[in-house]
Amino acid sequence: MKIVRFSHNHHEQLGVLEGEEIRPLQGALDQLVPVPGAKPTPLKAARLLAPVVPGKIVAIGLNYRDHAAERGNKVPTEPLIFLKPSTCVIGPGDAIIYPPQTSNLHYEGELAVVIAKRARNVSRAQARSYVLGYTCLNDVTARDLQDHDVQFTRGKSFDTFAPIGPMIVTSIDPSDLAIETRLNGETRQHSRTSNLVFDCDYLISYVSQVMTLMPGDVITTGTPGGIGPMQVGDTVEVEIEGIGCLRNTIAAPA
Amino acid sequence: MKIVRFSHNHHEQLGVLEGEEIRPLQGALDQLVPVPGAKPTPLKAARLLAPVVPGKIVAIGLNYRDHAAERGNKVPTEPLIFLKPSTCVIGPGDAIIYPPQTSNLHYEGELAVVIAKRARNVSRAQARSYVLGYTCLNDVTARDLQDHDVQFTRGKSFDTFAPIGPMIVTSIDPSDLAIETRLNGETRQHSRTSNLVFDCDYLISYVSQVMTLMPGDVITTGTPGGIGPMQVGDTVEVEIEGIGCLRNTIAAPA
Repeated sequence: MKIVRFSHNHHEQLGVLEGEEIRPLQGALDQLVPVPGAKPTPLKAARLLAPVVPGKIVAIGLNYRDHAAERGNKVPTEPLIFLKPSTCVIGPGDAIIYPPQTSNLHYEGELAVVIAKRARNVSRAQARSYVLGYTCLNDVTARDLQDHDVQFTRGKSFDTFAPIGPMIVTSIDPSDLAIETRLNGETRQHSRTSNLVFDCDYLISYVSQVMTLMPGDVITTGTPGGIGPMQVGDTVEVEIEGIGCLRNTIAAPA
Repeated sequence: MKIVRFSHNHHEQLGVLEGEEIRPLQGALDQLVPVPGAKPTPLKAARLLAPVVPGKIVAIGLNYRDHAAERGNKVPTEPLIFLKPSTCVIGPGDAIIYPPQTSNLHYEGELAVVIAKRARNVSRAQARSYVLGYTCLNDVTARDLQDHDVQFTRGKSFDTFAPIGPMIVTSIDPSDLAIETRLNGETRQHSRTSNLVFDCDYLISYVSQVMTLMPGDVITTGTPGGIGPMQVGDTVEVEIEGIGCLRNTIAAPA
């Protein structure tokens, strides 16, 4: 199932994408069902939004060997977690705003896991039963501020710094998918999720032993090597095999 | 006004504490009004909850000189921000759970600001008009995990690691209040908010230039010197002049 959130006639709702149509969905994230009698919306008439509005985004640092190396870091012996606030979230097609505080704004293409139901102290073997599905996330980073603060938070928490989408794919094995980030059409990051140091199931289990994961929460799994700067006017795309392409532009503050 | 959130007859709501009674409130946080015709609840019959359920908790590191010194850090030249997830929040009287992953669980008594309305790019002069009020927060920290990870997130994000309360006081000048943390009745931290390196108005302005603050969001302003460990069975109290005393116990996992 391909789950989208969309706006149509000033109404925002969840839906399932079937070909060129979106069929509205209702219910809790772990019990989504079609809205009885609802007419499908043509994809062309809808504006896609971030497919989820997470209460929290738990992000994983340095989770690909080549990225840890390019940042001059060792590969962590256990997952390194940080948080991005929900006020970062934008959808496909939305503009990433280049803040005046930075002069080194980077893309970080990532596979993200969307949680379907409350998860606390979940084992690795159980982890997948708590997952709604998988999507793309761009962990936009003001690299200079990240390096200045040492703490990752400020450099990764500006409004618009978490594009998510274009959809959540529920029936996919996340363990070996091609992941690519393109800047103005040029490939800058290219890897496979099989290169993750800690895989999705491990991360769900690990994080759930620290903090309760709630429906709609997102774990974003870290970025491969090839990070680099973006400029105002650029177009950045994060594409993951079997999920889709998350495309955003970079804009100056209004 | 002293704002509490309380549970009575299995119903959770906001109220204003007047002497020994709580009068129920309704409305948006910046427009709270008494519920017409509602009978007050005796304080003795109510269970006080965390007075706010924040979307995000923005925490400030190393914001008292004596705490920066005891941690072996320089005082930051600008506020150092990190996030605690909303799943950390507990209320007055609730138990802080000592996680099995740590063997060095610390209290950090702090003055916290509760935001009343959406704040983005707010000036220092305007900051106070976005504030609902002030409360106590215990920024509970697994010090060993914080030091291991360097990133503060894991060590400060376990469930129960953000006791908040007992109430939000709206009509108080936060600039020079006595703040004290006691462990089993013994004073461990004692300072004044006039010792904050960056004061509340500065922090609201600074954070709002990074991320939009939403109604109910909390900025917790950092802890003074005197941090130290807590053990299962201990009682920890954070008391701020004019606000009240936030008391919690430490418990082993169930």
